[in-house]
Amino acid sequence: MITKRTLLKLMPGLLVFPLPAGAADPLPSWNDTAPKKAILAFVAKATTKGSPGYVNPDERIATFDNDGTLWAEQPMYFQLLFALDRVKALAPQHPEWKTKEPFASLLKGDVKAALAGGDRAIVEILMATHAGMTTDEFEQIVQQWIATAKHPVTKRLFTEMVYQPMLELLTYLRANGFKTYIVSGGGAEFMRPWAERVYGIPPEQVVGSRIKTKFELRNGKPVLVRLPAVDLIDDKEGKPVGINQEIGRRPVAAFGNSDGDLQMLQYTAAGDGSRFCLYVHHTDAVREWAYDRHSSVGQLDKGLDEAKAKGWTVVDMKADWNRIFPFGSK
Amino acid sequence: MITKRTLLKLMPGLLVFPLPAGAADPLPSWNDTAPKKAILAFVAKATTKGSPGYVNPDERIATFDNDGTLWAEQPMYFQLLFALDRVKALAPQHPEWKTKEPFASLLKGDVKAALAGGDRAIVEILMATHAGMTTDEFEQIVQQWIATAKHPVTKRLFTEMVYQPMLELLTYLRANGFKTYIVSGGGAEFMRPWAERVYGIPPEQVVGSRIKTKFELRNGKPVLVRLPAVDLIDDKEGKPVGINQEIGRRPVAAFGNSDGDLQMLQYTAAGDGSRFCLYVHHTDAVREWAYDRHSSVGQLDKGLDEAKAKGWTVVDMKADWNRIFPFGSK
Repeated sequence: MITKRTLLKLMPGLLVFPLPAGAADPLPSWNDTAPKKAILAFVAKATTKGSPGYVNPDERIATFDNDGTLWAEQPMYFQLLFALDRVKALAPQHPEWKTKEPFASLLKGDVKAALAGGDRAIVEILMATHAGMTTDEFEQIVQQWIATAKHPVTKRLFTEMVYQPMLELLTYLRANGFKTYIVSGGGAEFMRPWAERVYGIPPEQVVGSRIKTKFELRNGKPVLVRLPAVDLIDDKEGKPVGINQEIGRRPVAAFGNSDGDLQMLQYTAAGDGSRFCLYVHHTDAVREWAYDRHSSVGQLDKGLDEAKAKGWTVVDMKADWNRIFPFGSK
Repeated sequence: MITKRTLLKLMPGLLVFPLPAGAADPLPSWNDTAPKKAILAFVAKATTKGSPGYVNPDERIATFDNDGTLWAEQPMYFQLLFALDRVKALAPQHPEWKTKEPFASLLKGDVKAALAGGDRAIVEILMATHAGMTTDEFEQIVQQWIATAKHPVTKRLFTEMVYQPMLELLTYLRANGFKTYIVSGGGAEFMRPWAERVYGIPPEQVVGSRIKTKFELRNGKPVLVRLPAVDLIDDKEGKPVGINQEIGRRPVAAFGNSDGDLQMLQYTAAGDGSRFCLYVHHTDAVREWAYDRHSSVGQLDKGLDEAKAKGWTVVDMKADWNRIFPFGSK
């Protein structure tokens, strides 16, 4: 007779990946390769009472970058595409833009020339399109754009350009008592209007870059006005700062895809007890895009080295995901 | 025979305050006066599906001021008492304080002279005691102080100086699907170390004033260093700003006690659907303290007028609460 103990000795994997027999696979879009095994092992350890790696439910904070981690970011950050659309929409109210860079090039359709001004040009475009209105008005603008604008390559809604394996991962973590957060370099108020519907992540769990706002009474009605001044750049060193400001605890799991996420992963890894850090590596030029060390969007260079050195989990999109987008592939 | 319909006609109150017969009173420290009735009516309306005042569970955000609303604030804000204790503890490392105001007066025990320098003196004391260490070190300092320091009048721990009726209200709201937040002028990182234990409010639901922090690698270990620079004053106009930054939705219920909470209550009241705004009015000089329009701590002047004009709920501590602190009275 084979006892339970003998069985466990013969198949130690049962202890490490205790998917109950007959339970549906929580991560069907993930191949049975190392990253999926690492995720299942981490969650089993963190949720097994008495296990040395047990994590109290209160402490189960998981933070996700957005651009390139939850949704795509090629051929350029989607929020930048939003800003370019807004420049066109606002141009009639700004006749001076016809002769003023970066707006003049943009309005002629020459995005490359417009962005040649570097960060300064981008900040000018962002401030001209993201400030000056109330927070309620901005939410309406984002809602309208996200409901209708199409991706330049796939012609899909941007909210369809999300990674099916990551949607499954978010659901799986939440089912195991994790609170899932977005911690993104993108604007918090650009993501909050649709993050709950698309990712199941409510506004209060979206940390992002912020511009300053000002409280005003307009005809007795209280409003918050968006000002053309940066309050937080929630990227690189700014990510742990944003996490500390808005969450106030160190995450136990963090997910990113670029050097912009490195400090968040370092901060997460440095805590006590069970820790999980994962990088999504864009390796699939056919179904999605392939880019890393030399990309101007979502550069992954130092992070890739550190992930290897520290033994963090690295997803090879091409090898580890059997499905990329809910609709299939690019 | 008395039908249910007849009964409801005879006792319309049954519709408004539908405490199930035999259910334990969720607010035993509240007298059966107008504020308690208003709270029960609001929660019934907000949680009754099909009611015109129904509030989706996702939208059930309730924000609470801390000083004077959840715990006491006399004879001065408790965080200021913490700072004064820290000045004494740090004095050996700062020989220059012996001749430098406001520290010199403080170290001689003359708090009044030290604070005569107004806001500037207070900011100097706060920065000297709240910055320069890592966030982890500051958390330890707060934990040690809060576990041992005693209130100058009652000789109780500060975490005992909380209002029993408000603890019951927090529990009652959470039992009805509300997410309870602190939104305080006090420092977020001063409150987070103990707010979960004392109020059941986790760190990620504590919004407060912030100083700037900076991410650093110290001997390869990532830390956040607290800098002597203000990032957000989460008071008055800053409260809706902090709410928008960290919660990203307008609360449906807000609770305060001073003019510092007025903008939060205005912002809350201005949303659509069911709304609830409540002021705690300190009227009990025997069991707690009595102060309002002319107090230097927790001044309630404009707020009291606006509450009356708008029909917000005002708690008369003396008349409406049968118990103040968990241990009884001052």
